[in-house]
Amino acid sequence: MQADCRYLEDLLHHDIPLTRAMQLTVHSWADHQLRLAMPLAPNVNHTGTMFGGSLYSLSVLAGWGWLTLRLREAGITDGHIVIKGGQIDYPLPVEGDAVAVCAAPSEADWAKFEKLYRRHGRARLYLDIRIANAAGETAVQLHGEYVLHK
Amino acid sequence: MQADCRYLEDLLHHDIPLTRAMQLTVHSWADHQLRLAMPLAPNVNHTGTMFGGSLYSLSVLAGWGWLTLRLREAGITDGHIVIKGGQIDYPLPVEGDAVAVCAAPSEADWAKFEKLYRRHGRARLYLDIRIANAAGETAVQLHGEYVLHK
Repeated sequence: MQADCRYLEDLLHHDIPLTRAMQLTVHSWADHQLRLAMPLAPNVNHTGTMFGGSLYSLSVLAGWGWLTLRLREAGITDGHIVIKGGQIDYPLPVEGDAVAVCAAPSEADWAKFEKLYRRHGRARLYLDIRIANAAGETAVQLHGEYVLHK
Repeated sequence: MQADCRYLEDLLHHDIPLTRAMQLTVHSWADHQLRLAMPLAPNVNHTGTMFGGSLYSLSVLAGWGWLTLRLREAGITDGHIVIKGGQIDYPLPVEGDAVAVCAAPSEADWAKFEKLYRRHGRARLYLDIRIANAAGETAVQLHGEYVLHK
């Protein structure tokens, strides 16, 4: 698990240089749940809370990273992940460091996605990412649409 | 107009430090249309095109900047702008530098927004932001929800 986190963090920092400016880190990968973290200071906005663009980026990369690690585990190494779109909502501000959590989709959704990709070389998956505030309340929710193609 | 661009760019670079890492600039403000620009290099992703998180940030800030300048023009100086959410779609990749364009909402929508804010100290506005590729086709669309409150 630790090796997976290191692998993903190196990949993100190398391939998407803005993640270094954001000081994004891979917090944990366990039980098919991925956590990415980011400190407030480099991502602050005009009100002293976390900038909505940084919160979106952290969330969308939690989904991208989840898919990267899950595909690796499934032995699928020939796919390219594309972010097609997403709906983001910010019910509450984030006043400190942020952790985005991407949970697994249902077993059925994953099985269907894997089967479609292996058969057609292209498949779509929706992932839900959440950032909580210090009190554990949902501060950010992203419903992201990802496409995997050969 | 040039002074407005300089004002907004200084505000963004000062209040949201990540915009400096993104090398965001205010391109133009004319006829109630705002253009924000960003080069590819600091915002590149693993495929050599623009990172979806940077495209979202540029778009959401085009809406935020539009509202900032429009409110200033309307003489409303006591409001705080909050990004409540948005739907982003990426129909095509952006393979070079990006320019996000935020156009004005309809006159009726603006008049209603201004009236509600002056009456209740709180109002909601939806703004549409678009980024085109080099061929002029829509590569990114954001439908953003902004709330202004006292």
